[in-house]
Amino acid sequence: MSNISQNTLVPGLEGVVAAETSLSSVDGKAGELIIAGFPVEELASRANFEETVYLLWHNALPDAEQLTTFKEALSVRRPLPRATLDLLRAAASEQALTMDTLRMAAGTTSLGTPDNAPSEAGFYGDALALVARFPAIVATYWRLLKEKEPVAPDPELGHAANYLYMLTGKPPSAGYVRALETYLNTVVDHGLNASTFVARAIVSTRSDVVSAVVGAIGSLKGPLHGGAPGPALDMVFEIGEANRAKPYLREKIEHGERLMGFGHRVYKVRDPRADVLAGAAKRLYTNDGDEALYELALEVEKTTLRLLAEYKPGRNLSTNVEFYTALLLHGLQLPTDLFTATFAVGRVAGWTAHCFEQRVQDRLIRPQSRYTGPKDRSWIPLEKR
Amino acid sequence: MSNISQNTLVPGLEGVVAAETSLSSVDGKAGELIIAGFPVEELASRANFEETVYLLWHNALPDAEQLTTFKEALSVRRPLPRATLDLLRAAASEQALTMDTLRMAAGTTSLGTPDNAPSEAGFYGDALALVARFPAIVATYWRLLKEKEPVAPDPELGHAANYLYMLTGKPPSAGYVRALETYLNTVVDHGLNASTFVARAIVSTRSDVVSAVVGAIGSLKGPLHGGAPGPALDMVFEIGEANRAKPYLREKIEHGERLMGFGHRVYKVRDPRADVLAGAAKRLYTNDGDEALYELALEVEKTTLRLLAEYKPGRNLSTNVEFYTALLLHGLQLPTDLFTATFAVGRVAGWTAHCFEQRVQDRLIRPQSRYTGPKDRSWIPLEKR
Repeated sequence: MSNISQNTLVPGLEGVVAAETSLSSVDGKAGELIIAGFPVEELASRANFEETVYLLWHNALPDAEQLTTFKEALSVRRPLPRATLDLLRAAASEQALTMDTLRMAAGTTSLGTPDNAPSEAGFYGDALALVARFPAIVATYWRLLKEKEPVAPDPELGHAANYLYMLTGKPPSAGYVRALETYLNTVVDHGLNASTFVARAIVSTRSDVVSAVVGAIGSLKGPLHGGAPGPALDMVFEIGEANRAKPYLREKIEHGERLMGFGHRVYKVRDPRADVLAGAAKRLYTNDGDEALYELALEVEKTTLRLLAEYKPGRNLSTNVEFYTALLLHGLQLPTDLFTATFAVGRVAGWTAHCFEQRVQDRLIRPQSRYTGPKDRSWIPLEKR
Repeated sequence: MSNISQNTLVPGLEGVVAAETSLSSVDGKAGELIIAGFPVEELASRANFEETVYLLWHNALPDAEQLTTFKEALSVRRPLPRATLDLLRAAASEQALTMDTLRMAAGTTSLGTPDNAPSEAGFYGDALALVARFPAIVATYWRLLKEKEPVAPDPELGHAANYLYMLTGKPPSAGYVRALETYLNTVVDHGLNASTFVARAIVSTRSDVVSAVVGAIGSLKGPLHGGAPGPALDMVFEIGEANRAKPYLREKIEHGERLMGFGHRVYKVRDPRADVLAGAAKRLYTNDGDEALYELALEVEKTTLRLLAEYKPGRNLSTNVEFYTALLLHGLQLPTDLFTATFAVGRVAGWTAHCFEQRVQDRLIRPQSRYTGPKDRSWIPLEKR
């Protein structure tokens, strides 16, 4: 525990505690992730996504009546207003990036809701609308990009099921829905990550939750933001057959290339989310999926871990959450281009929950800068420059 | 200078230095504001806005050729693309808040520019487009709200002149343009204020400048964000005649009401921006304005200061920048509803400059949170809750 002098620079604010939260706890040394009091292993594969959102927002699981009311409140806010659809069409005509489009379309939540207002009720209504609309925005945009007509949400289906339904136009199997809910629950919150911090900083000026979430999407877009799943399975696709795994991986390692899907910045032991997602992937592929691909992925994983132990002994590199995320989302037939946006479909619940918490704490987040430039420049007229 | 232990909470990150910058320096004790090496008094009333933006982005005033090129680069990016105009019309049909609309419309800078890209050139082009479009967005939206057709920018006019032209449809006088440029230069940057910090935090994940500026607008919207001008002149309008100033003000003070336009969180001595804006207001009203209103405002100011010294001796409360800002912007016939958006028209140059600086520093901004909740909750099935 080192000391930081006030008025000394703390690069990246590393190690500075900027907020207290009861939403999630990340202990990288213990390999522990707590979501609103529940170890992630306890919660993720049992709750449906609406229950998890309610838990984060109200610090308790809903009873049957509360859950019905909450689902209904999301359901009525799920259809996208005209202005949002128009913007999605304009974005599709330019093949805009999915994350930029999600940011722009989520921003229009300030339109088409009766909620947008500085009041408590308006803040809560906006948060509901944001969580409700994320899947509709992503699915609608994806279909427009592929020149397919959007599919309106089905009021009979839950949140996760609606995402898959709006993407494909077909009601998903129970196994698909369970796998997606487990994924969304697993990534719903993760301490004061960069995007969550941005959301809290925005709300700290007493701004609104739409503004905060839009800022958070912008932060999540950046490649230094952890957690967003990437092309961790590309290696598996490139290897193609189990017997090609070893030579392919040896060559990668010997050329010093990073193996996507292994190692993590925070977790020094196994990331607790990895087990949850590995279990969910196993169930998904066994019941509903491409078992051959699953076997291949496990074989690649085993071989990679063996070779990493051989080439980098003592580094204790393990499979990270990205590997199982990619396996799970690929099993759900989600294209890699939608992985980060799908992460946002889960994380928006955490962002909004942090906004509620910050709003109650009501403290402006406003660090200092230190000036390093000159102070005595004099004006020079244009003709003398 | 106190010490902050690592892993201890620093509420609001107060006193923590999160970044080094050569863009501006705020010294509240000395009453000093430096903009890229120039005392604000040296720069603000001499530079046109394009020179100030160039100075912040390139750390030097442009020569004649550089200035011409820079003005042209802004000019070609000033007209709004179709998707942005459609969104402004949709917002106007719902009478959306100006700051929400600025956020939404600025976000569409990811559309309709050839620039949006992770490259150095794309980043710079997006920053140009953002600075160029802010006045067009605000002016167009204002006209749509008033059911007037938008006025396209005039390529013969500079940045500040175009803002007034697009608002009114008439080319502004030289005195108006000079007054507006002085205002925009004065508020262009102010250390690591809340919105600037949000912009830097977003770019710190290696996200793009449009995302960063959109987040900053959301932060600026909040009433705890300093700097944005408010209805500081309402008191003057209510007083109406010089001889009513004293009784009106005595009653306010005796009822413990805050007097808008007096006192500042940071500047313990006179805010250096106040003098610059007071001088600009004097010139504007003398040459181009409602002199009677100006005399009244000065009379109210004098009386307020006298009464504050009487009722709150030793507090050393002085006229703040909001008072002169309101006086100046009112003199330019800008409606109070556009004050914060007009502040953003200036500040976007600082936001983008900080994005360039952060991009070079390339360090993720990511503080910690401390968990205060339970860790051992167990799942309870719905029927048992």
